[in-house]
Amino acid sequence: MYRTNTCGELNESNIGQTVTLSGWIQTIRDKGFMIWIDLRDRYGITQLVFDEQRTDKSLLEQTKKLGREFVIQATGQVIERASKNPNIPTGNIEILVEKLTILNSSLVPPFTIEDETDGGEELRMKYRYLDIRRNPVKEKLIFRSKVARLVRNYLSDLGFIETETPVLIKSTPEGARDFVVPSRMNPGQFYALPQSPQTFKQLLMVAGLDKYFQIVKCFRDEDLRADRQPEFTQIDCEMSFVEQEDVLNTFEGLIKYLLKETRSLNFDKFPRMTYAEAMRRYGNDKPDTRFGMEFVELNDELQNSGFKVFDDAELVVGINVEGCAHYTRKQVDELTDWVKRPQIGASGLVYVRYNEDGSIKSSVDKFYSEEKLQAVIKKAQAKPGDLLLILSGAANKVRPQLSALRMELAERLGLRNPEVFAPLWVIDFPLLEWSEEDNRYAAMHHPFTSPKPEDISLLETDPGKARANAYDLVLNGNEIGGGSVRIYDKDLQALMFKLLGFSQEDAEAQFGFLMNAFKYGAPPHAGIAFGFDRLVAILGGQEVIRDYIAFPKNNSGRDVMIDSPAPVHQKQLDELRINVAKE
Amino acid sequence: MYRTNTCGELNESNIGQTVTLSGWIQTIRDKGFMIWIDLRDRYGITQLVFDEQRTDKSLLEQTKKLGREFVIQATGQVIERASKNPNIPTGNIEILVEKLTILNSSLVPPFTIEDETDGGEELRMKYRYLDIRRNPVKEKLIFRSKVARLVRNYLSDLGFIETETPVLIKSTPEGARDFVVPSRMNPGQFYALPQSPQTFKQLLMVAGLDKYFQIVKCFRDEDLRADRQPEFTQIDCEMSFVEQEDVLNTFEGLIKYLLKETRSLNFDKFPRMTYAEAMRRYGNDKPDTRFGMEFVELNDELQNSGFKVFDDAELVVGINVEGCAHYTRKQVDELTDWVKRPQIGASGLVYVRYNEDGSIKSSVDKFYSEEKLQAVIKKAQAKPGDLLLILSGAANKVRPQLSALRMELAERLGLRNPEVFAPLWVIDFPLLEWSEEDNRYAAMHHPFTSPKPEDISLLETDPGKARANAYDLVLNGNEIGGGSVRIYDKDLQALMFKLLGFSQEDAEAQFGFLMNAFKYGAPPHAGIAFGFDRLVAILGGQEVIRDYIAFPKNNSGRDVMIDSPAPVHQKQLDELRINVAKE
Repeated sequence: MYRTNTCGELNESNIGQTVTLSGWIQTIRDKGFMIWIDLRDRYGITQLVFDEQRTDKSLLEQTKKLGREFVIQATGQVIERASKNPNIPTGNIEILVEKLTILNSSLVPPFTIEDETDGGEELRMKYRYLDIRRNPVKEKLIFRSKVARLVRNYLSDLGFIETETPVLIKSTPEGARDFVVPSRMNPGQFYALPQSPQTFKQLLMVAGLDKYFQIVKCFRDEDLRADRQPEFTQIDCEMSFVEQEDVLNTFEGLIKYLLKETRSLNFDKFPRMTYAEAMRRYGNDKPDTRFGMEFVELNDELQNSGFKVFDDAELVVGINVEGCAHYTRKQVDELTDWVKRPQIGASGLVYVRYNEDGSIKSSVDKFYSEEKLQAVIKKAQAKPGDLLLILSGAANKVRPQLSALRMELAERLGLRNPEVFAPLWVIDFPLLEWSEEDNRYAAMHHPFTSPKPEDISLLETDPGKARANAYDLVLNGNEIGGGSVRIYDKDLQALMFKLLGFSQEDAEAQFGFLMNAFKYGAPPHAGIAFGFDRLVAILGGQEVIRDYIAFPKNNSGRDVMIDSPAPVHQKQLDELRINVAKE
Repeated sequence: MYRTNTCGELNESNIGQTVTLSGWIQTIRDKGFMIWIDLRDRYGITQLVFDEQRTDKSLLEQTKKLGREFVIQATGQVIERASKNPNIPTGNIEILVEKLTILNSSLVPPFTIEDETDGGEELRMKYRYLDIRRNPVKEKLIFRSKVARLVRNYLSDLGFIETETPVLIKSTPEGARDFVVPSRMNPGQFYALPQSPQTFKQLLMVAGLDKYFQIVKCFRDEDLRADRQPEFTQIDCEMSFVEQEDVLNTFEGLIKYLLKETRSLNFDKFPRMTYAEAMRRYGNDKPDTRFGMEFVELNDELQNSGFKVFDDAELVVGINVEGCAHYTRKQVDELTDWVKRPQIGASGLVYVRYNEDGSIKSSVDKFYSEEKLQAVIKKAQAKPGDLLLILSGAANKVRPQLSALRMELAERLGLRNPEVFAPLWVIDFPLLEWSEEDNRYAAMHHPFTSPKPEDISLLETDPGKARANAYDLVLNGNEIGGGSVRIYDKDLQALMFKLLGFSQEDAEAQFGFLMNAFKYGAPPHAGIAFGFDRLVAILGGQEVIRDYIAFPKNNSGRDVMIDSPAPVHQKQLDELRINVAKE
């Protein structure tokens, strides 16, 4: 062992002891007659001291060779510090060094190893092993491992069995794009990496395992949006002989436990909201309920007054932005431009300003009497000093637009406080959504999700109306988990595949093993999966997941540190019997 | 919830209660006037009873539709059982059923769902979801999850941080063959799946994480020998500022803890043996020390007596098979054929039989006087009734041959008792081994293993003689873990790559990121990895790992249940810009 103690544990009670520490040099302060070194390891920082009076001359000379991030081993006596530092646990002591060994040297690092660094994202990722030396990053990785441990112990104590499912599986075109792996032993054939262990966990229920979980890597070959990773980690769970209510209660328990253990927060029952209600009140199936600014539907108040834009719209809907009546014309114009960007796609933005003095000003006041605008203000429960922002159009278009504006304003107004936690169950999702691209229904959750029993008859008549026993857990406007009660009847499963446009042959080829399993006594079962990267980030008070991943990939799916992906030797491709296609 | 209780928990204290159980029908015994059903779930079996006197007629009728492995829900009163079954926890009670719901039907399963099944390996794997319903398989999966939890909690309590390393990494030709994954976003480039997180865990040490572990899937595209899997699970560990002794002590602690928690066995310090000694005494670097039969070197006793085979051999070496002097000529001939098979490759087998009456008989007694054979017997410490079996040849050939014979005899003689546990550290492995195929040295462990400091000078003069700070943990003749002190000096690492035949460019292209990291203050570090599948199997008293894996692959790397690998759509290949090569 290169040390008797870590750099984070010595204090007054150790004064007089001779200790050996090892670590990295954080800083060197050289006053000529006296030298202080801050020595850092994972556990903290301890001050080393050398001085002309007490330190051997050759040892003092040796310190001249040292530099930032050198790895050293130092032996000496713990002494009381003259000028104490109350900000760190070791701040009352220092080590009067008697022996110094340079274990390794270091080039000057490309960015400062400090809580606030001067290194940009790209540089920090290329030298991720230096980035992780910084406290904020290191603490996030430690936090992640702590949360994983809490999850495992909580679920294990409830009788869940952590079971590893295979990584080399089979490609299924449903859902996102698969990563595939050519099989050398089976030329022309491929494994796929799992997008989730969905079918395997269902098979484990057929197998009678009763309660399964796994913290597991999953893979999606998607074009990466910001803060999406091609490989990500899920808490994957499944239970048998349960109904939706049992799943919600079990995993509400898990999340409550995590909020208590990591944030010291106690929650009563989590609120629930149907998908339809979430869309109506927030225009979003994962509403951030840390703040209000709920949707106010204004068709009754604003239609049939001659303003054609509103009169022709399916839905006229606004939000009341509290205390923002003071927004200038320029600010409102900027917001108008913001919602008109192609990413949002609104055609315009109407405002109704309820001034502090009680007067009302609107961009459309030539169409509306003061009385009508008063009715709008009343419906919106606006107070003097508030600003109403209103969009109109087709309901399924305008709701997401207004939701985006609501979130943007909340961001600007500082309403998205990462220290506040607002969990919410969203339930009763639609079973199917119409895919314009493929001209067929697609599963909103996945093809194994059970319709609500009372909606099964709709599958034959009006499938788009059928609701699913599917649920999402939303935390602070992020979907942190989602799941469903599964189909366990082979005939209903076959009907689902048919609705989703699978030929019988395709369904058989891809999911035959599951449908076959359903012939041998499948129990009723249901489950859920949590996005572990995001859950950890949100519990950590952040929304960016990248720093909670030890070695993340960039938006092109590259690991810039190891420079991967990369070409492979032709010999490898020959063995796999594949070729890279010519351009 | 479809149940108030599980099938494993009801007993006399519940008599009189009305309960609801759900599960699978294990057996139906129909006496006409009385019907008993054994209902099974993960937790146990509970007997349901229906009889003419007490059960509603329509309910009795309903039972006629039931069959093996049907999934049912039954509600009724817990009553005392007339004929008790002391072998199961629920054996004193039964449920007088009042309400019965068929949750799902089942075809007749293709093999019996019993502890001893009539299903062969292939069939069981195809219907793995039925196989897992069998107690012995289910219990193995539960045992596995228990061991994983023990490992995690033990290491976490010691301050190890479980850190996920990436699965999509970069191919390196050193070691076994990689599975590769074409990158759609980077055409012509490939990720590789990790054979181990070796370089990443070393980078985490450079990053200052100090103590890392991970239970992690790894991948090797090898031609599969029996009981090898293309994807397997490792307990991967690394520590900073430690020496070999610290690693051995830390992980000896882990394995002791597992032996205590899973087998109630207490161990004192594990014995240690150098590689050289293990080869000399057992002809094997993972000797099974549950039994003796150690090698006896007989050059002094048996050379220079005119038996040319022995006289010309580098090594004459035997084992004393206790109590086997009674082996017939036929049995010895059969053993001779066994060692002459190409897999073993010995040219012959010499025996010296020390009969119960003190007389000696040998296949080569025309070359040796009674006195000389007495000397052999003395050297081997044989007792009357023992049988000596002797091989000869080049030391590096004959030792593995005799080791194979020793293990075969131990198997036949029942000396490999799975209830006995013999851990052993094998240390001081050679750093390099000569590869005849590539006409260069290859790393015996991997290219990051540190030579023993006292052997570094040998690297320039006689590299084959250099020993490594490398160690294996052997349990019952299986290598369950292996590791090493790592190189942390960039110049020594560069020298190693040179010895291994890497050009500077190749070393840079493949391991540049690691050698670069070593320029920024790499700490001394060391680690170990355990084969989790095998460790669990051995702790479970078995040697076959397949049943400890929920969904294993067969020897062709196929998952016969999901029928994978499989061809993929041409569209997928087009997107990935790869082609399957023509034959």
